[in-house]
Amino acid sequence: MSEPTGNYQFQTAGKIIAGPHAIQRLGHALTGAGQASRALIVASDTMRKRGVTDEIAALLAQRGIASEAIGGVMREPTADHIEQLADRVGKEHFDVYIGIGGGSVLDATKLLSVLRTNRLGVREMIGTELITGEGIPTVLIPTTSGTGSEATPNAIVTLAEEKLKIGIVSRHLLPRLVVLDPVLTLGLPKPITAATGMDAFTHALESYISNKANPISDMLALESIRLISRSIVPAFHNGSSLEDRSAMLLGSMLGGMALAGSGTAAVHAMAYPLGGRFNIPHGAANAMLLPHVMAFNLDRIRDKLEIVAAAMGIAKEPGRPAAAAERVIERIAEWTEELEIPQDLTAYGVQAADIPSLSAAAFNVRRLMDNNPKPVSTGQIEAVYRKLLPREAIK
Amino acid sequence: MSEPTGNYQFQTAGKIIAGPHAIQRLGHALTGAGQASRALIVASDTMRKRGVTDEIAALLAQRGIASEAIGGVMREPTADHIEQLADRVGKEHFDVYIGIGGGSVLDATKLLSVLRTNRLGVREMIGTELITGEGIPTVLIPTTSGTGSEATPNAIVTLAEEKLKIGIVSRHLLPRLVVLDPVLTLGLPKPITAATGMDAFTHALESYISNKANPISDMLALESIRLISRSIVPAFHNGSSLEDRSAMLLGSMLGGMALAGSGTAAVHAMAYPLGGRFNIPHGAANAMLLPHVMAFNLDRIRDKLEIVAAAMGIAKEPGRPAAAAERVIERIAEWTEELEIPQDLTAYGVQAADIPSLSAAAFNVRRLMDNNPKPVSTGQIEAVYRKLLPREAIK
Ligand SMILES: NC(=O)c1ccc[n+]([C@@H]2O[C@H](COP(=O)([O-])OP(=O)(O)OC[C@H]3O[C@@H](n4cnc5c(N)ncnc54)[C@H](O)[C@@H]3O)[C@@H](O)[C@H]2O)c1
Ligand SMILES: NC(=O)c1ccc[n+]([C@@H]2O[C@H](COP(=O)([O-])OP(=O)(O)OC[C@H]3O[C@@H](n4cnc5c(N)ncnc54)[C@H](O)[C@@H]3O)[C@@H](O)[C@H]2O)c1
Ligand SMILES: [Fe+2]
Ligand SMILES: [Fe+2]
Repeated sequence: MSEPTGNYQFQTAGKIIAGPHAIQRLGHALTGAGQASRALIVASDTMRKRGVTDEIAALLAQRGIASEAIGGVMREPTADHIEQLADRVGKEHFDVYIGIGGGSVLDATKLLSVLRTNRLGVREMIGTELITGEGIPTVLIPTTSGTGSEATPNAIVTLAEEKLKIGIVSRHLLPRLVVLDPVLTLGLPKPITAATGMDAFTHALESYISNKANPISDMLALESIRLISRSIVPAFHNGSSLEDRSAMLLGSMLGGMALAGSGTAAVHAMAYPLGGRFNIPHGAANAMLLPHVMAFNLDRIRDKLEIVAAAMGIAKEPGRPAAAAERVIERIAEWTEELEIPQDLTAYGVQAADIPSLSAAAFNVRRLMDNNPKPVSTGQIEAVYRKLLPREAIK
Repeated sequence: MSEPTGNYQFQTAGKIIAGPHAIQRLGHALTGAGQASRALIVASDTMRKRGVTDEIAALLAQRGIASEAIGGVMREPTADHIEQLADRVGKEHFDVYIGIGGGSVLDATKLLSVLRTNRLGVREMIGTELITGEGIPTVLIPTTSGTGSEATPNAIVTLAEEKLKIGIVSRHLLPRLVVLDPVLTLGLPKPITAATGMDAFTHALESYISNKANPISDMLALESIRLISRSIVPAFHNGSSLEDRSAMLLGSMLGGMALAGSGTAAVHAMAYPLGGRFNIPHGAANAMLLPHVMAFNLDRIRDKLEIVAAAMGIAKEPGRPAAAAERVIERIAEWTEELEIPQDLTAYGVQAADIPSLSAAAFNVRRLMDNNPKPVSTGQIEAVYRKLLPREAIK
């Protein structure tokens, strides 16, 4: 564990309300938080179809808050798409933006909020703390478990021409309020449960081994690991288990809180080019890469993985202290199989010839690569990507 | 552990910066947070004498922030005293109030902030969420480890005439920024290290067993218990150990965060009358009461205390699952001895004849008593207080 004698900082969402049907407390929480009279609801199409958007509008109306809804947010949105959404919102005044959906919708909501109040385009915001003014206050309601975006100062955009995914980091992206309502995630399809669950787990594990890990991020990461380890496989097989869905949703937010303090590392750096160039869903890319990158890191993170093993409920074998660390990596590999996540980049159109340029792109994600506990060369990145090509798949 | 299927909420300080000499980052953090140009520093006399107030003023001046300092905050301040402080501050405008000191100074700073912007006296604020308007933004810098006041929506005041200590709870009391600088706590005298350390531990333990405990407060409480258990005795014996002071300071803030979500319980309810009527320092009162109240609660909290035992590093004895819970209570009693906390109310002037009225007063602290996992009658409260009279002291 990181020692509390280091220097660190911590900042996350202003307030969290949680529990089954927590969205029904949204009107109350909003009127408590200030004098909102008009709200913009940015909703995923799934939530609109399920009637959740209308339900929220009705709850707000009871409190005298008028609302308008906007939909059609693309998956893993591009910078251009977000600017088009901003044009659709226009110059109308809303006191609060409420985002309800997966990470794509939440990130879009966060960016819409700061686009409204800053004279900057999305591309000018790319980087760390380049947004100067506060945005419209946001409420974020995640429906995947998930990106943890509701608790991070990050928004990820795709640059279509450059074929890149890239991060915008600013404290102005943190929401005023998060609503964790596990009922909303009951209908999450199996492949999305698997991919987004592994994304959440990756946030926790990468935060825990990050060079920027600190005592607060460690606490959050380990609790996230504990919750996700016990619930990811059950939630996949029995999507209507409220208990497992609740644990996944909380675990995913805690993973986001952890990464808000410590950042992610090589897995995420290597996942971004796969998303940018081959549209591999973010969670699926992470899930494929995770066991291989951890195997690469192993000699530097043995002690930490032993603590992770305990959080995952992996028993120590007496006389073989090292074994627990290896078991963590094996367990992750077992999950990806159980969760039916293909360990095969060719399924998404990646070919051996693409590996060098993918590796160069991943190497350049310095913001994250510099957090990795072991330095990674482009050659080593290539070797990891190659493990995900079937011919050379690892035993 | 509390199940994540319950309903709960969580809200704490806006941002935390931590580490040795973290106050040197205060100017940077403040300019990052907005356009502060004038700051009021509410400082304990110890910090003023140690030159910390001047150091902060100089750091702020470098960033173009003018400041004025105010001192003379009484220990465990009365409502009248706080209103007198508010009169001294007057109607001058400050963009931020910076409180640096123990819980007494932090609570005073929090109340000064909301007194400045609300048309209410301190007495009118007593209760839960009765403060309607936001206060002046605050920065809280704890120098004891501690009350955790820097992370709670609470301020505790003494009502001199009624001989009562009582709580004000409002989200408007939460600070924008917390600075955890363990260097400031290196000179904390032994008795204050002991008493405030036990207060912090009590926050964590009472939060964990509270009827309002939830998965987030549990995580915070257990981490607080872990940190304090390993560092309270070493910090007492070797006050200049930066490692133990750091662990205590973080542990104490996490205890505050835990209680912000779940509340404290019977120990705190019984400590307040001892403070209000006999000026027993808050931490000392809690430390005396803690083992006896936990022994009273034992049959309702066995399972939880087993988990607490693990966090405290108390090994399970095979075949005696219950023993770990008893060992927790024994360990707490051992600490109070090791930390030289008198288990004797008569040392503070309490007599047997005072017990019935003290008990009636404690019984009436319903906000906290209702959090206790086991209902407590006035007779049972009396029995606990009597254990702290020497003639009837428990073996
Ligand atoms: N901001 C951050 O901190 C952060 C962290 C990690 C990832 N991300 C980004 O988030 C995006 C990915 O988000 P995601 O993984 O949540 O997926 P997503 O938001 O792209 O959603 C995936 C699909 O699931 C559907 N869906 C969502 N919730 C549903 C529900 N409850 N029931 C049925 N269908 C539902 C969506 O409509 C969509 O079709 C990527 O752009 C990624 O880079 C951001
Ligand atoms: N708001 C909350 O959530 C909360 C929680 C628990 C207790 N409290 C309240 O906080 C008050 C008690 O605060 P406390 O226990 O921190 O004690 P305190 O603030 O009363 O300080 C005790 C003494 O220690 C001295 N001191 C403080 N820091 C020092 C340092 N670094 N070096 C040397 N001396 C130092 C002070 O000057 C004072 O004389 C009580 O009123 C209690 O009810 C509030
Ligand atoms: Fe991610
Ligand atoms: Fe206390």
